[in-house]
Amino acid sequence: MTQTHRPGPTLRVRTRELVPGTERPREDRVAAEEPLEVRLGWPGRAAQRVWVTMRTPGHDFELAAGWVVHEGIAPPHALRTVAYCTDVELTPQQELNVVTVTLATPPTVDPTTRLGAQSSGSSACGVCGKDSIEAALATPLAPAWAGPVAPAEVVRAMPARLRDEQPVFDITGGVHAAGLADADGTLLAVREDVGRHNAVDKVTGARVLAGEDPAAALLVVSGRAGFELVQKAVAVGTGALVAVGAPSALAVTLAQQAGMALYGFTRDDRTVRYA
Amino acid sequence: MTQTHRPGPTLRVRTRELVPGTERPREDRVAAEEPLEVRLGWPGRAAQRVWVTMRTPGHDFELAAGWVVHEGIAPPHALRTVAYCTDVELTPQQELNVVTVTLATPPTVDPTTRLGAQSSGSSACGVCGKDSIEAALATPLAPAWAGPVAPAEVVRAMPARLRDEQPVFDITGGVHAAGLADADGTLLAVREDVGRHNAVDKVTGARVLAGEDPAAALLVVSGRAGFELVQKAVAVGTGALVAVGAPSALAVTLAQQAGMALYGFTRDDRTVRYA
Repeated sequence: MTQTHRPGPTLRVRTRELVPGTERPREDRVAAEEPLEVRLGWPGRAAQRVWVTMRTPGHDFELAAGWVVHEGIAPPHALRTVAYCTDVELTPQQELNVVTVTLATPPTVDPTTRLGAQSSGSSACGVCGKDSIEAALATPLAPAWAGPVAPAEVVRAMPARLRDEQPVFDITGGVHAAGLADADGTLLAVREDVGRHNAVDKVTGARVLAGEDPAAALLVVSGRAGFELVQKAVAVGTGALVAVGAPSALAVTLAQQAGMALYGFTRDDRTVRYA
Repeated sequence: MTQTHRPGPTLRVRTRELVPGTERPREDRVAAEEPLEVRLGWPGRAAQRVWVTMRTPGHDFELAAGWVVHEGIAPPHALRTVAYCTDVELTPQQELNVVTVTLATPPTVDPTTRLGAQSSGSSACGVCGKDSIEAALATPLAPAWAGPVAPAEVVRAMPARLRDEQPVFDITGGVHAAGLADADGTLLAVREDVGRHNAVDKVTGARVLAGEDPAAALLVVSGRAGFELVQKAVAVGTGALVAVGAPSALAVTLAQQAGMALYGFTRDDRTVRYA
């Protein structure tokens, strides 16, 4: 049986460890990072590129599906198929770096206006930034979370629970993680990626492709809580975003407007609620 | 005198600290985050949008100039002016979120083909990812560093030296930093930003706008060393990239190909050389 080489999440590299006074040869494992192109099609329109990202290979369909849902391009039930591209011009390796999402109906927002898909040359200086900046700040809002709310002790426990489910980080020390959890702290999905936004896209995509609601009581992230992560969380109606690191000012403002709880600097014995 | 409000790098927010058994009201400072649109013009072509990013306000001209140089769009000497947009349609706040870079000559690469400026709808499925993926991997290469090489003890000392020059991190705990340094560890420029790529663009832009060569013996970053950071470093001929965190596999490969040293997991008593 011929099997296409699928890039795994880690690779071996020869390294040298430099400690005071000496240098030692080693072998380390590092996280894989490859470009992924996402295409979008719907009835009457052939698939076209809407996004290119660097990501850790693996869970690519989830990444594409989660990104489409987070961007507000289509609700979960409108995703018909997700597939690798099989055009003849591509090498097998390239095919695994192109994913096509086909919608059952046309998208609810123009996918070309999203920040990640900003088209150059379409805005003369007279239009002057207003459209692109408004597009960057425009956030699809799902109804606010109406389910059970996680108590403070569950929030504080989440980073350690997430940390227990990060096999690629264990090997490489070089990837971010995101996890969705119930209000009692039970993890529903955990994904890792060199890009922290990708990890969040992947957990949402995992729920969507499993036919589950991507809205959860808790979204836990291993890093900081920037504006774009809060955008993704409120786009699916998350109850609370729990970050190990700090939020940005714009992230706090958006969480407040959307009625989503936002926790930063979270660890076993302390968390700070910003919204 | 009327003064336009310029957003600063931090903002105050009311928070609640949740420790076991109690909840305390606090006031914290968080890092500002705002969208920035970068436009590019040259003789015979009016400025048009080429990039939109979320960034911490401040050093915006450096961010735009550094991005243009890192993308290989133009060499440092080809930058004629960098200015905020003053079109009448914009509010004063919006004007500060649009920066126009004017080149003395047409760009050396098409700015619309870069990853950050991927245009949607320009690639039918038949073209099949090859162009966008090659564009993502295409890296402008400056000549490899031929200056003095930093010894291991200087490399190991750099994260602590960078840490001493991070006033916004001191206040917020929520921004990345990048610094350029000589082979003896003297810092030439340090910048902070919620986006780690932006911090690297800003230090290069700081050198370019000061009329200095952006190539330095050392580029030090507070986080991980992903592919895109190595792309920026090799685009200006950096001697070594020193990261506090882990590199990705593709980052290691590119550093090896470009002949640039790459250090990860760097701290006072240890560093690991990957390339």
